[in-house]
Amino acid sequence: MTVDAESDLRIDAARLWRSLMDLARIGETPLGGVRRITLTDLDRQGRDLVVEWFRAAGLEVRMDPIGNIFGRRAGRDPSRPPVVAGSHIDTQPSGGKFDGAYGVLAGLEVVRTLNDRGVRTDAPIEVAAWTNEEGSRFTPVMMGSGVFAGAFSLEHALARTDIDGASVGGELARIGYAGSAPLGTPVGAYFEAHIEQGPILEETRNVIGVVTGALGQRWFDVTVTGMNAHAGPTPMELRRDALLAASRIVGEVHRIALTEAPHGRGTVGFMQVEPNSRNVVPGVARFSVDFRHPEDTGLRSMEEKLRAACARVEGECNVTIRTEEVVYFPPCRFDAQCIAAVRAGAQAAGYPSLEIVSGAGHDAVYVARVAPTAMIFVPCKDGVSHNELEDAKPADLAAGCNVLLHAMLSRAGV
Amino acid sequence: MTVDAESDLRIDAARLWRSLMDLARIGETPLGGVRRITLTDLDRQGRDLVVEWFRAAGLEVRMDPIGNIFGRRAGRDPSRPPVVAGSHIDTQPSGGKFDGAYGVLAGLEVVRTLNDRGVRTDAPIEVAAWTNEEGSRFTPVMMGSGVFAGAFSLEHALARTDIDGASVGGELARIGYAGSAPLGTPVGAYFEAHIEQGPILEETRNVIGVVTGALGQRWFDVTVTGMNAHAGPTPMELRRDALLAASRIVGEVHRIALTEAPHGRGTVGFMQVEPNSRNVVPGVARFSVDFRHPEDTGLRSMEEKLRAACARVEGECNVTIRTEEVVYFPPCRFDAQCIAAVRAGAQAAGYPSLEIVSGAGHDAVYVARVAPTAMIFVPCKDGVSHNELEDAKPADLAAGCNVLLHAMLSRAGV
Repeated sequence: MTVDAESDLRIDAARLWRSLMDLARIGETPLGGVRRITLTDLDRQGRDLVVEWFRAAGLEVRMDPIGNIFGRRAGRDPSRPPVVAGSHIDTQPSGGKFDGAYGVLAGLEVVRTLNDRGVRTDAPIEVAAWTNEEGSRFTPVMMGSGVFAGAFSLEHALARTDIDGASVGGELARIGYAGSAPLGTPVGAYFEAHIEQGPILEETRNVIGVVTGALGQRWFDVTVTGMNAHAGPTPMELRRDALLAASRIVGEVHRIALTEAPHGRGTVGFMQVEPNSRNVVPGVARFSVDFRHPEDTGLRSMEEKLRAACARVEGECNVTIRTEEVVYFPPCRFDAQCIAAVRAGAQAAGYPSLEIVSGAGHDAVYVARVAPTAMIFVPCKDGVSHNELEDAKPADLAAGCNVLLHAMLSRAGV
Repeated sequence: MTVDAESDLRIDAARLWRSLMDLARIGETPLGGVRRITLTDLDRQGRDLVVEWFRAAGLEVRMDPIGNIFGRRAGRDPSRPPVVAGSHIDTQPSGGKFDGAYGVLAGLEVVRTLNDRGVRTDAPIEVAAWTNEEGSRFTPVMMGSGVFAGAFSLEHALARTDIDGASVGGELARIGYAGSAPLGTPVGAYFEAHIEQGPILEETRNVIGVVTGALGQRWFDVTVTGMNAHAGPTPMELRRDALLAASRIVGEVHRIALTEAPHGRGTVGFMQVEPNSRNVVPGVARFSVDFRHPEDTGLRSMEEKLRAACARVEGECNVTIRTEEVVYFPPCRFDAQCIAAVRAGAQAAGYPSLEIVSGAGHDAVYVARVAPTAMIFVPCKDGVSHNELEDAKPADLAAGCNVLLHAMLSRAGV
């Protein structure tokens, strides 16, 4: 195949869209979203359909012990590790049609396009569907890719239970996806196409996000302890108001993120007050802090500023503040050559593109620990995701899939 | 009886304490508190014991249609309206032994003391136990005294229901306390002894609070609406963070109260966040605001400052803020002569006393609408109330009861 012929290669946008809509019917919600929670019967139906499509496209299907599904298209050189495209098909409880499903079906569309045009590659091509990326039923999140990359053990993952006591291992066996293929097999390169889940591409009118890495994350649980008091008879100066103290920290978390612009993020998403009665000065406030930053030094600086703010507010409000780190994801920088392949694919097709850092975690962040990796973002409407209203344009999804096609070909060799 | 003999008159501190402890056994909790919720079987048992004690003390007992209990000791002049002492015997779900019960049993102890010493008064003496002061099962709070004073109608009160659908009228009939005595009969003067429920007397080492009135109250429900967004991919400057906005208002409520020192109070006791997930920028925050102030002009000024702060924060955080007033109690100034009677009683007995404004509502606030009224506060440990750990010293309770005795005698005439 000549270089010209390769650059003319285009995926079938209508077929990609049709597959997305067909898969979205499994677990569809009245508001147009999808509820297909990991390792449920609906997840099994989704998996069954994807496996059927894989086989119809001539892929050799295998499952590993954590239920990751791989579909392999042979290359000329069976000794080369595969170039893999993937993502996940499980959704949030109130999820959308594109988060995850797009990355898997874009990989499948690449294979179908290669089949249509009879394109052979040097390295094998694989499409991967990772188990339980969302983490809404079983934690940790990004479970399948995490086990694959050795971030935590298979045994740990299989033993995790949901709120009803069902285990990952038991549910995998029940739905027939506890495979026996080897875990953590070599990957030559990994590409994940995904909706951005944020507003930047749409705001800047770009079609392709060339994702250079992912923000590191440090999550904290914070507990403020003051003292319950009757809101009427207790003078302001004698109060130990836990919510007042918590509110000051909420403001500090925001301020700290602004000092780390443009990539620093600080969020308090969870807040619980005790006794939570309108005429009682709150004695306890619990809340979460979510810091994200592209550099570990930045994350550490944010934590130091948080601790300093807590110490100051303890004095101001006569309360005690306990801070516990509960999650740490180091910042992730994707592979320079994989990033270049994505950038070149966008430029060759003439899509306006922007280098972007992923604010969210993705399976690619774990896979990047064991293989050269990059991601491709496409815009989603109003930046909305993890929501039944999640939406994306067929043309943008097709553009991302074309970039995926060319990035994979450039790494696999044609 | 001579003035000297009257000023020598002392209540029986041990008997008062014993009665408090006996009543506290009905609904006692493992932590030493009391759970005797209004119009339950335990409330009936408490009422039965109080009525038994009233009758044993020679009082003529009557109940009105909202279940208020009155015990009357005849005076020399049956044409004079009675001098009344009272409070309530219902408790919070996790209440203490003194809140309310003290005011009723202090009144009973006054009667017992007068009986022991054969003291006759010109005006009749009455002891009142008002129905449902706490409002924890049925709202509005201070129901019995509110109906008595015409703050709301008997029909409205009887029709109120608890979360299981039981009505005040039905429960009153069930426990046998739907009386037929006339409602809102004339009162010559009303005195209510109560634990302070705040820390001021203890902090200032005073034994008697000469209560000159009660703070007015304005309560608001505030709803902040922003937009849910993923905490990772959403840049700080594009967020519409409802909790950040709410936190700023919490700070403003505190600041507004400080500008109205020393009697202004501002409390956010209730806060609820949606979706309340640690990695989602909150789209909605609901919270309460409780403002208290001794003057209506002060309350109005606090509300204006709140509205100005909300307007400013709406712009800062790109959210909308809706504020709804849900409760208004006007400030209450007690009767100058009744206050003077309390002050004189404390001075005559040599108790260190302090003029104090009640931060909380009490039955006395409603009774003050229809009769000359004042209150007597005594210290409670650490200012703690509405709590099973509520505690007070026998000597302080006796001091307050002696002041009640002398204030009542000065108004009733001996």
